[in-house]
Amino acid sequence: MVSPRAVGPLRLPIDRAVDSALDRVAQSELPSRGEFALIERHFKNLTDQNGVQLGIGDDAALLSATGGSDNQLVVATDSLLQDVHFPAAATAYDIGRRALCVNLSDLAAMGATPRWFTLALSVPAELASDEWLEQLSAGLGGVADRAGCALVGGDTTRGPLALTLTLIGEVPAGQALRRDGAQSGDRIYVTGTLGDGAAALEMLSSEALASPDARLFEHFYAPKLRLEEGIRLRNIASACIDVSDGLLADLAHICRASGVGAQIRLSELPIDQRVRRDFALQCTDWALSGGDDYQLCFTVPESRIADFHRLAATGAIDATEIGTITHSDRMSLVAECGRVESIDQLSGGYNHFAG
Amino acid sequence: MVSPRAVGPLRLPIDRAVDSALDRVAQSELPSRGEFALIERHFKNLTDQNGVQLGIGDDAALLSATGGSDNQLVVATDSLLQDVHFPAAATAYDIGRRALCVNLSDLAAMGATPRWFTLALSVPAELASDEWLEQLSAGLGGVADRAGCALVGGDTTRGPLALTLTLIGEVPAGQALRRDGAQSGDRIYVTGTLGDGAAALEMLSSEALASPDARLFEHFYAPKLRLEEGIRLRNIASACIDVSDGLLADLAHICRASGVGAQIRLSELPIDQRVRRDFALQCTDWALSGGDDYQLCFTVPESRIADFHRLAATGAIDATEIGTITHSDRMSLVAECGRVESIDQLSGGYNHFAG
Repeated sequence: MVSPRAVGPLRLPIDRAVDSALDRVAQSELPSRGEFALIERHFKNLTDQNGVQLGIGDDAALLSATGGSDNQLVVATDSLLQDVHFPAAATAYDIGRRALCVNLSDLAAMGATPRWFTLALSVPAELASDEWLEQLSAGLGGVADRAGCALVGGDTTRGPLALTLTLIGEVPAGQALRRDGAQSGDRIYVTGTLGDGAAALEMLSSEALASPDARLFEHFYAPKLRLEEGIRLRNIASACIDVSDGLLADLAHICRASGVGAQIRLSELPIDQRVRRDFALQCTDWALSGGDDYQLCFTVPESRIADFHRLAATGAIDATEIGTITHSDRMSLVAECGRVESIDQLSGGYNHFAG
Repeated sequence: MVSPRAVGPLRLPIDRAVDSALDRVAQSELPSRGEFALIERHFKNLTDQNGVQLGIGDDAALLSATGGSDNQLVVATDSLLQDVHFPAAATAYDIGRRALCVNLSDLAAMGATPRWFTLALSVPAELASDEWLEQLSAGLGGVADRAGCALVGGDTTRGPLALTLTLIGEVPAGQALRRDGAQSGDRIYVTGTLGDGAAALEMLSSEALASPDARLFEHFYAPKLRLEEGIRLRNIASACIDVSDGLLADLAHICRASGVGAQIRLSELPIDQRVRRDFALQCTDWALSGGDDYQLCFTVPESRIADFHRLAATGAIDATEIGTITHSDRMSLVAECGRVESIDQLSGGYNHFAG
């Protein structure tokens, strides 16, 4: 905004400079780069004092890690795109919830305590209303409060709707749950139920379903955070991953990283009763490779089983034993009839994902 | 990839699960979410041992900060989109260089030492060739090496070309260069020359220019990192910002955060000789509000001027004094003839950016 001035027809550089600044203001309601003014206004309440010396509003955030060198930082990034990671019909509130929950799932799988996150938001001009942004902020804010993490920076650009979140957490040095610690003989567990993600997607994609399932809707947009479980497993699990791409795909990551195989007992897969009833033909498939479950899949060595059972007995972790880590270089599935199916998903399989 | 099996016509859940996994593989050469296999292959050399206990390949990176609670973390995020932040004709190498340099500029402005970064890459299928990704990796890698920071994670999605980088650095507690420390009487400095960003953009957007300027091209895609300067200014500058949106806009951030005004002497603006010659009419305008300069604009209180002069005398920092911080709530420009132009960019102006 330029102050009123009395200038003649001669245009000095000084005037052009001022006009140029005006042009920049007029160009767009959305800042085209760099700063975060728009979001700052709507998201200020997400920036609480969680070791944040300086949040949104400087070139970078200034953060105090706790515990000094006794802690390690845990950092994860994920992007969510419209029509890929959430339906076009999703509300801003639900998009916000899902974006943060999905990213927090990676921290849960590391046994980390979330502290901070940044948000890079690409949003089409027609969506970027005050109301829409308030809703997005509310969705993110509710989850951020529950998880105890603060928004510390971000960037807004005009473009197709997409959110990239980077989460930063902490874990006591040496206690992170990694993928590479599983050993032959370890038992394999999974929290909650599997197949809910695929069932929810099916429900959201089809109008045909008679009675929309509120549990599945909530699971899709705000999957239960497994942060507490991750933290409790720090000294118990030998390996851990979150089930985002499907049990087989994610357990294969553990197997490859640990140099082991795995045997899964199909009859033990925890599947919600209603999913089993409504999707009888698909539910086992979905439990194995549907994805979007955001449960923790972890392994427990024999030496820790007693500790784990004590923990489970208190109700502090809700998990089902589904199989065993093996010496093999394969993953195999054991059907109820006893038939064993070997799948070569460890060595060959995943290179194909990478093109 | 599924191992060859002899199965009958009866399709059990177990078969469907395996087929589903195959479908997922066949769907896309690019992983549609979550993991980073494609990038991992091309970017592995960017993940060196810079306090990285665990880089790409787990749910999250595991990092050791140095100095414990003597240090603070510095975190910044920026997105770069094709046609907004770089021309469609830009090579992958140049896109990579620019993306990291622009993000490092925020850390330089905080006086931080860069340590790690994450990359969320949205890339159209037709671009994601091995060669293109190698080039992008080479562009990022060269800058990462110079800046001493390691890639610790990321995400790849199919979509319009866009890069979101999150940088994490460290700074001794209490020594970060912030925007809010400027006081009336402080002198205002800027490193290097101003207006190069706009001149480069003009050059890249027009075919008309007789002799393309290699210096401007390099400035646009790999602006000189001011990390060393930022670190040296830790105990000297009272406030600092990087000039990304233009001197007036960025200095206005310092003024607003510090509750002060500023007076800029137009005749002192450092403008490259060749830019002054080739763009005589625009260069002052560009120096004031062109943006993309990625210089540091900082203020030095009288009590630190002697220290600053000693530093400048060693050649350790190349900066020009361009004005003075004032008591006013305005920014003003002093023309060579002595005329003073007041611009109300502090209170009213910036709300308009925010819509």
